[in-house]
Amino acid sequence: MAKVKANETAERARQRRLRVGKRIADANYGALLVTDLKNVRYLTGFTGSNAVLLLRPDGSCVLGTDGRYTTQVRQQTGAPEDMEILIERDLFTALRERAVSDAGPFAVEPSLPVARAKSLGDPPILSGSVERERLIKDDAEIDALRRAGHLADRVWTEFLAEGGLRAGRPEREAAADLEYRLRMAGADGLSFDTILASGANGAKPHAGASGDAILYGLVTVDFGVYVDGYASDQTRSVSIDQPSALDAEIYDIVLRAQRAGVQLLAPGARLRDIHQACVDVIEDAGYGPFFVHSTGHGVGLDVHEAPSASGFVDPEETLQEGMTLTVEPGIYLPGRTGVRLENTYVITPTGAESLNPSPLDLHVV
Amino acid sequence: MAKVKANETAERARQRRLRVGKRIADANYGALLVTDLKNVRYLTGFTGSNAVLLLRPDGSCVLGTDGRYTTQVRQQTGAPEDMEILIERDLFTALRERAVSDAGPFAVEPSLPVARAKSLGDPPILSGSVERERLIKDDAEIDALRRAGHLADRVWTEFLAEGGLRAGRPEREAAADLEYRLRMAGADGLSFDTILASGANGAKPHAGASGDAILYGLVTVDFGVYVDGYASDQTRSVSIDQPSALDAEIYDIVLRAQRAGVQLLAPGARLRDIHQACVDVIEDAGYGPFFVHSTGHGVGLDVHEAPSASGFVDPEETLQEGMTLTVEPGIYLPGRTGVRLENTYVITPTGAESLNPSPLDLHVV
Repeated sequence: MAKVKANETAERARQRRLRVGKRIADANYGALLVTDLKNVRYLTGFTGSNAVLLLRPDGSCVLGTDGRYTTQVRQQTGAPEDMEILIERDLFTALRERAVSDAGPFAVEPSLPVARAKSLGDPPILSGSVERERLIKDDAEIDALRRAGHLADRVWTEFLAEGGLRAGRPEREAAADLEYRLRMAGADGLSFDTILASGANGAKPHAGASGDAILYGLVTVDFGVYVDGYASDQTRSVSIDQPSALDAEIYDIVLRAQRAGVQLLAPGARLRDIHQACVDVIEDAGYGPFFVHSTGHGVGLDVHEAPSASGFVDPEETLQEGMTLTVEPGIYLPGRTGVRLENTYVITPTGAESLNPSPLDLHVV
Repeated sequence: MAKVKANETAERARQRRLRVGKRIADANYGALLVTDLKNVRYLTGFTGSNAVLLLRPDGSCVLGTDGRYTTQVRQQTGAPEDMEILIERDLFTALRERAVSDAGPFAVEPSLPVARAKSLGDPPILSGSVERERLIKDDAEIDALRRAGHLADRVWTEFLAEGGLRAGRPEREAAADLEYRLRMAGADGLSFDTILASGANGAKPHAGASGDAILYGLVTVDFGVYVDGYASDQTRSVSIDQPSALDAEIYDIVLRAQRAGVQLLAPGARLRDIHQACVDVIEDAGYGPFFVHSTGHGVGLDVHEAPSASGFVDPEETLQEGMTLTVEPGIYLPGRTGVRLENTYVITPTGAESLNPSPLDLHVV
């Protein structure tokens, strides 16, 4: 069973290399030097912290890493026939030599550090060849995303039910408690530093978790995990004791904004419209200036990846089946309070599936 | 008291900007676009996840970020007179305009993504101007490093004493337990994913923490925290029940190698010699091929930063007072077992101070 699964994973990676290889051929390059570690993982299954992949148009490749990963790289990739594994200290020099001996010039990824590009002789840049494949998740990827989202959501529900959030508890302690539960439930790790912000801290969208005690009022918690390499991302705002009129008002607005965005999710929906739907609700309620970020982003091997739902994306850019998107409007009142509500969705043939099933209605502790 | 401390932090950042500004002037640039987030933090105190700093030779600067950080950026920097704060969506376009209107061409950091460099018109690269300052830690930085190292080490000692490691406990559960204790003790976060590897997993230097149960024999635990932005990094290998002859042998060799390296730590010591001292002990014992990584690295705002102790550094590169270095030799026997022992040291006028005081002698659970 495990053996079959390993073979399936290797075969999936091979198919991906063939598809990206086609893009390399279409762009008339002899090879692509893949340096983004998530892209290397996507194309090979290898998760080491040091890896460079030379990928050719025919899908064959050279995967370089260092001596710390000699055992792991073979286990994770299955060492297929069309993959040469190279254990080297100076990977770039070794792979450049391979690339130069191949037919045609090699290209690099846009994220390659500029100094490294110079040392390689300033090769041409090929953008998005792997990311365009990653945009549409296959069944195995959706399964991993669902397991990550459900795990995090289930742990969150237990954490709330068991008194994880209470006035007087330091934010950092509550965050550590939640993170411990996530890990014990089987998360491979956190997909980002947990945000757990109460009172005026909640008015900072990326507050972290401070040493401050949780106050009466709204607490915003934004958290996520990795399961089998795939991320989850969700946010809940909870009221400690009955909400003030202001807290209840902004919560209700954000909830309506979130639902307005979600209602549009389906193949063909324009990303800009989804953002605008959220903006409209918040602007109509008079809080337009206090929604200070974009509405959503894709989630996959990276917790933030394409697509993006904001006022700045190409008006013609649309959702497709198999894409993921968070919908996460918020209102932030500096020095006072804040609300953000977020689920991650996967686009289905007819709409969208939430990966975080717990209710978004105001929860009062 | 807090106010005085905030002023001190702002003044320290200002002095750093002046020193890096001098390097920008020496290289005949009109400005440096600082994009490495740790460098931005070092020069301004701002910790946001989106920031670009335009730094001029006179130490004045423009710090750009987005609307999520409007409140935080002013709080953390103290909004000094020589700093203009810019809240913009398209930071690079805005800052490029500022840079171009200044005297002289602007330079970028080597880590800037190559596609971004192209979009900025391929500016010249100025390497190491901030990193060279970061290499020598000041008293406040050493204090933060010491607090991080002592916190992690104290928690580790309690974790061991309270039965955190035991045969049959899943590696991942033990890692989650240790991480929870670190967070509850006041860590702001983990400086990297905890490695907790037993049996053959311990033969992979960067194994992570798997779902496998801890076995009798050696368990290697490599872990670290952030405190006030500064990292800790240490590794212990522990024996569950009495060690086998092989485990005891390789543990003793690695311990002697570690001590041989540490004995050389002092201003003026050559980094290559420190690595060689570790290599010599392991080679003399016949395990040379199984020490597969370099001996050490600096620790600061990044958990891996300059300097490096390996066989590849410039033979004339030496330690200086205020530098940090890990000394972490290891032996890895694929498919069987592994040992690594690591402390982080700060170089003092006459030698070195360990930031992780717990004993390195073999601990048997």
